[in-house]
Amino acid sequence: MDQPFPETLHESIDFPDGLALDCGRRLRSLTIAYRVYGLLNAARSNAILVCHALTGDQYVAETNPETGKPGWWDRVVGPGQPVDTDKFAVICANVLGGCMGTTGPRSPHDDRPDEPWGTDFPPVTINDMVRAQKRLIDHLGISRLFAVVGGSMGGMQTLAWAAMYPDHVFAAVPVAACAYHSAQNIAFHEIGRQAIAADPAFHNGRYWAKGVTPERGLAVARMTAHITYVSEAALTRKFGRKLQDAATLSELGDRFEVESYLQYQGSSFVRRFDANSYLTMTRAMDLFDLAAPHETGLAGAFAGSKTRFLLVSFSSDWLFPTAQSRAIAWALNAVAANVSFVEVKSDKGHDAFLLDEPDFHRTLAGFIAGCAEHAGL
Amino acid sequence: MDQPFPETLHESIDFPDGLALDCGRRLRSLTIAYRVYGLLNAARSNAILVCHALTGDQYVAETNPETGKPGWWDRVVGPGQPVDTDKFAVICANVLGGCMGTTGPRSPHDDRPDEPWGTDFPPVTINDMVRAQKRLIDHLGISRLFAVVGGSMGGMQTLAWAAMYPDHVFAAVPVAACAYHSAQNIAFHEIGRQAIAADPAFHNGRYWAKGVTPERGLAVARMTAHITYVSEAALTRKFGRKLQDAATLSELGDRFEVESYLQYQGSSFVRRFDANSYLTMTRAMDLFDLAAPHETGLAGAFAGSKTRFLLVSFSSDWLFPTAQSRAIAWALNAVAANVSFVEVKSDKGHDAFLLDEPDFHRTLAGFIAGCAEHAGL
Repeated sequence: MDQPFPETLHESIDFPDGLALDCGRRLRSLTIAYRVYGLLNAARSNAILVCHALTGDQYVAETNPETGKPGWWDRVVGPGQPVDTDKFAVICANVLGGCMGTTGPRSPHDDRPDEPWGTDFPPVTINDMVRAQKRLIDHLGISRLFAVVGGSMGGMQTLAWAAMYPDHVFAAVPVAACAYHSAQNIAFHEIGRQAIAADPAFHNGRYWAKGVTPERGLAVARMTAHITYVSEAALTRKFGRKLQDAATLSELGDRFEVESYLQYQGSSFVRRFDANSYLTMTRAMDLFDLAAPHETGLAGAFAGSKTRFLLVSFSSDWLFPTAQSRAIAWALNAVAANVSFVEVKSDKGHDAFLLDEPDFHRTLAGFIAGCAEHAGL
Repeated sequence: MDQPFPETLHESIDFPDGLALDCGRRLRSLTIAYRVYGLLNAARSNAILVCHALTGDQYVAETNPETGKPGWWDRVVGPGQPVDTDKFAVICANVLGGCMGTTGPRSPHDDRPDEPWGTDFPPVTINDMVRAQKRLIDHLGISRLFAVVGGSMGGMQTLAWAAMYPDHVFAAVPVAACAYHSAQNIAFHEIGRQAIAADPAFHNGRYWAKGVTPERGLAVARMTAHITYVSEAALTRKFGRKLQDAATLSELGDRFEVESYLQYQGSSFVRRFDANSYLTMTRAMDLFDLAAPHETGLAGAFAGSKTRFLLVSFSSDWLFPTAQSRAIAWALNAVAANVSFVEVKSDKGHDAFLLDEPDFHRTLAGFIAGCAEHAGL
């Protein structure tokens, strides 16, 4: 990024009345960038909201205009896919605090519109993200979402949707999700934040004013996160201990394939992602705790819910492990909610929700078909 | 560090004939800093070598002169402790490549003795570390060590001792160890190395010439490592999601206790540790692979061994998990070696080997007593 504001124009809607945030502050202007795949029916009853993860965006099922890569969930969303765009209108919005067109640290400052928010951007929560999405859904004239679906941070949003707007969500599918961010999760995020803050190009978050980006810090943050997204088995299968250049033991440079892969992951990421957004969004995840406001704990978040839930976890996910999804299932059972819970056997780690996992895709397709029948779709 | 060379004088021996290294290069001068606790008997048959871990040093069982803290293993080594200094002479040397007196990146350069090696220091291996220790043991007139004991990187050295000098090791106790560094282990180290390299104070390793230290990068490296040393349960027990200042949601500063703890861990570490040593030693660990040189795999490393082994792992250690120790036990069984293997139930993670773990200490004391009887001590 050589300039304060991004170049790509994303399809978006402005909400000039802004948005009140959990922190007590108010965004005076709010823009939500989003994409829709498939057609809304006359009753507007066939909408599925997809919520994206930390490094995702609204380009679920089409070429991403910034990276040129395929949509991040085109295995799951599309014509004939488990989330079938021939039958459903699939909506995905860039999250509040993001950097792909929705209001975030890279958007014009409310008070100084010639410069971006940067680190002045208020801290947002997962609930704030959901409130922003609700504005979009209202704007589109959708009174009830047929389903909300998301993995990882998207799964947090899915749970928050079901907790905050139970009458507006017929079905909810939190995938590889959790009801709160654990101490270990927070610790890994903190590594990334420290690495970004330690980069001299960060300039206390005003890097945009200098025409630079804290690339090295952001790359270290991405590398750290990436390790937590994959299983030990997946890393080993991909790289094992293969030496890049087995001949040389004579210098301290990069030696193992896994290292150059991680460096590549880091460097490709920094070309497309805003560091202040990364700080804002990791903080939102760390603050997430569905049970906290409720005297009865997690069950209290879902009391009286009529939403149908499908919880999916992956056996080798050590970041948001199965035990987290099971705890959500127990809480839903405690309030007699309608819940299915599937642990998919996979050795791909947390990232499995993005990858080729036929069991997950079959389970999701079956659940959606069943719910569609109940919903009269 | 405000000057190229450290101030503290450590007890050490010079080996003016140097040391040949695995990389093909030769250190023309070699200094080994070490400590001895307890008295060597007349037959010099009661020596126990303790090998330290990545961030350890030779101050096993006495106040550390640089940190002022108690010895890092004073729960295990001392009068009446499992490694009893009333009965045994316990030796511990700072490893080759370290920064506490043994030859390493902070030592005078062979060709330019007015400046330290810095990043010119040759890459060393775990085997090189053991070769250096063997020189010390020979110098002390010890033909056979009664035992070699070490955890983590110290466990790697213990295994290497048994593999390289089987006739010189009566008993070996690798604790929380592994026979090779996994792709995930390497990846976590790479995060740390990248963070150090990204720190502008690193100056391509010539920070000593500028009178600065890459403190922020080293702190991020230490934070990353620290997370891998503790279990999820231990982090949660210590911190959970306690907010440092529950009142405020209004800024993006440090919010969770775990974060300030990690920052403290990082910053106390950078005051005592040399970044180039950290790079050298993590690289040595990454290169460790006992099985690689042997056509028959790991078992080949121990063929014909008469050493008595006790392998100890900790159930919640996810860095060097039990499966790694079990694989070593299988390899030892395959060559009919004398091996005991104990998985200690603990929720303290990899760090458990340093902490108050009575089952581990009892097991170690029992094994050493049994071996002493067999050795006629």
